[in-house]
Amino acid sequence: MATIDLGSISHWIGLFGIGVFAVSGALEAARKEMDILGFMLIGTVTGLGGGTLRDLLLGATPVYWVQQPHTVTICLVASILTYFLAPLLASRYRALIWMDGIGLATFSITGTAIALSHGAPPLIAVCMGVMSATFGGIIRDVLCSESLVLSSRELYVTAAAAGASTFLLLQLLGLGESIVMLGAFLVGFGLRAAAIIFGLKLPRYQRPAA
Amino acid sequence: MATIDLGSISHWIGLFGIGVFAVSGALEAARKEMDILGFMLIGTVTGLGGGTLRDLLLGATPVYWVQQPHTVTICLVASILTYFLAPLLASRYRALIWMDGIGLATFSITGTAIALSHGAPPLIAVCMGVMSATFGGIIRDVLCSESLVLSSRELYVTAAAAGASTFLLLQLLGLGESIVMLGAFLVGFGLRAAAIIFGLKLPRYQRPAA
Amino acid sequence: MATIDLGSISHWIGLFGIGVFAVSGALEAARKEMDILGFMLIGTVTGLGGGTLRDLLLGATPVYWVQQPHTVTICLVASILTYFLAPLLASRYRALIWMDGIGLATFSITGTAIALSHGAPPLIAVCMGVMSATFGGIIRDVLCSESLVLSSRELYVTAAAAGASTFLLLQLLGLGESIVMLGAFLVGFGLRAAAIIFGLKLPRYQRPAA
Repeated sequence: MATIDLGSISHWIGLFGIGVFAVSGALEAARKEMDILGFMLIGTVTGLGGGTLRDLLLGATPVYWVQQPHTVTICLVASILTYFLAPLLASRYRALIWMDGIGLATFSITGTAIALSHGAPPLIAVCMGVMSATFGGIIRDVLCSESLVLSSRELYVTAAAAGASTFLLLQLLGLGESIVMLGAFLVGFGLRAAAIIFGLKLPRYQRPAA
Repeated sequence: MATIDLGSISHWIGLFGIGVFAVSGALEAARKEMDILGFMLIGTVTGLGGGTLRDLLLGATPVYWVQQPHTVTICLVASILTYFLAPLLASRYRALIWMDGIGLATFSITGTAIALSHGAPPLIAVCMGVMSATFGGIIRDVLCSESLVLSSRELYVTAAAAGASTFLLLQLLGLGESIVMLGAFLVGFGLRAAAIIFGLKLPRYQRPAA
Repeated sequence: MATIDLGSISHWIGLFGIGVFAVSGALEAARKEMDILGFMLIGTVTGLGGGTLRDLLLGATPVYWVQQPHTVTICLVASILTYFLAPLLASRYRALIWMDGIGLATFSITGTAIALSHGAPPLIAVCMGVMSATFGGIIRDVLCSESLVLSSRELYVTAAAAGASTFLLLQLLGLGESIVMLGAFLVGFGLRAAAIIFGLKLPRYQRPAA
C-alpha cells in the first residue's frame, strides 16, 4: 500500500464512480427503450453530472471534463457497452440500483475531498459531497421522467451523508488517504447496500390524520 | 429606522427569505412523506437554489453559501423544525403556498439588488430577480415530482416581476434602501397574497377551438 | 456572399436560434394555457437555456445575455408575439416541433463553434454542441411537465450530434465559415426534418422478453 501514489488512488476512484454512474444512466435509457444516441446522452450526463454541479458551485470552471476528454470517453464507452450487454442482465432495474449505489458512495467521498481541497469549510464540504453524490441520479431520473430514486426511503440521502461525514472525520484523524477513502466508501456503500437488501428505512414523516 | 445599517437590512431579509423557502421545501417533503434526511436535502436545495442560480449566472463563484455556512445551517435547522412541527399545522399545503409566496417576494428583491450591484443592466437585473425568485420553487417541485407552482395561474411569475420592477423603480427614484425594500416587498407579496386569497388571475391563453 | 462579415453571420445565426427556441417555448406555454407572464418566462428560459449551460460549463461568466440584454428582448418579444399569433396556427404542436428542430440544428453549430473558440478539445466541443442544442428543449419540457422531446426516437440527439460533427469536420477541412455553418445546418436540420416527415428512427433498444 505504502508505495501507491495516493493522489492516483483518488483519481482512479473518481473515474470508477463516473463509469458506474454512466452505466446506471444507460440502464435507465434501456428501461425507456431509447436508441443508442439516447444511451450515450443519458449515460454521459449521469456520469458527469455530479462532478459538474460541484465544479460549478465551487467556481472551478471550465468544469473538469472540458480539459479531461477521457472522462467523456469513459461515459460514452460505458453507455455503448451497456446498450449491447444489458439484454444479458436478468434485471436491469436491480443492476441500475446497485450501480447507482456504488456511484453514490464514490461521489460522496470525492465530492467532499475536492470541496475541502478548494478551501470549503467542513459543513459545506459535506453538503458538496451529498449534492454531487445525489445529483447524477436526480438528473438521470428527471431526463427519463422516472420517479426519483431520491424519494426512495431506503437511506439514499443518508448513505451519501454518512460517506461524506466519515471521510471528513477520518481525515481529521490524520489517517492516510487510502484508508480514509476505503473506510468512507465502506460506510457509505455498506449503509446503502444494507438498506437495499434488508429494506432499512428511517422513520418516515407521518401525515397526521387529516 | 435611521440608525439601522441598511446593508444589514438587506442581509437579514436575504436570510429570512432563505429560511422561509427552506420551510416550503420541507413542507413539500412532508407531503411526500420523506425521512428527515429528505427534509434536509429538499429544504436546503429550495432555500439556497434561487441565490445559487443567480450567483452562477453572474459568475459570482464560489456561490455565496460556500463562504457563508450559516446560510446552510439556517436551512438545515428550518427543515428539522418543520419535520417535528408540521403535524401541528391544519394544512401543510396552505402553509407551503404562503411560505413560498413570502420567499418569492423576498428573492425577487434581493436577486434584483445583487444583480444591479454586479453591474447588470436594468432589464437583466429584473430577469435575475424573477429567476432567483422562481427557481427555488421550481427545483423543489421538480425534486418532489410535484406539479409546478409555476403553472399555477395565480399571478406567480407576475408577482415576482412586480416585486423586481418596483425595486428597480423605487431605487431609480433615489429612495432609501429600507423604503425601497419595504415598498417592493409590499407590492410583490401583496399581489401574490391577493391572488391567492381572491383567486386573481391574468387572462389565460385560450386554445382556439380545434 | 464574399463581402459579408463572417463573424456577423455566426452572430445572426445565434440570434435566430434564440428567437426560434423562444417561440417553441411560448408554444409549449400555449399548450399549457399559461398567462402572458408564463409565456415570457418559458420562452426566455428556453431561448437562453442552451447557451447559458454552455457558458456555465466553459466558465464564460457572467453568461452571455447579462451583457447582451437584446437577446433577452428577442425572447420576450418572440414570446409576446406567439401569445397573440398562436391562435392563427392550425397545429401549435406541429409548429413547436419544427421550431424546436431549427433551434436544435442552430445551437448544435454555435455551441460547437463557441466551445472550440474557448480552446475545448474536439470531442468536448461536439459534446457542448449537443448539450446546448438539447438543453433548451429539455428545460422547456421539464418546466411544462411535458414528456421530454428528448425521448422522442426520431433522431433528436442524433441530429444534434450530426450537426455538431459536420461543423467540426468542415472546419478541419479549412472551408470558409459561412460554408461550414450552412453545411452543418443542412446536415443537422435535414436529418431532423427527414426524421419528422418520414418517421425515421434508429433501432431502439429492445427489452429482452422478461
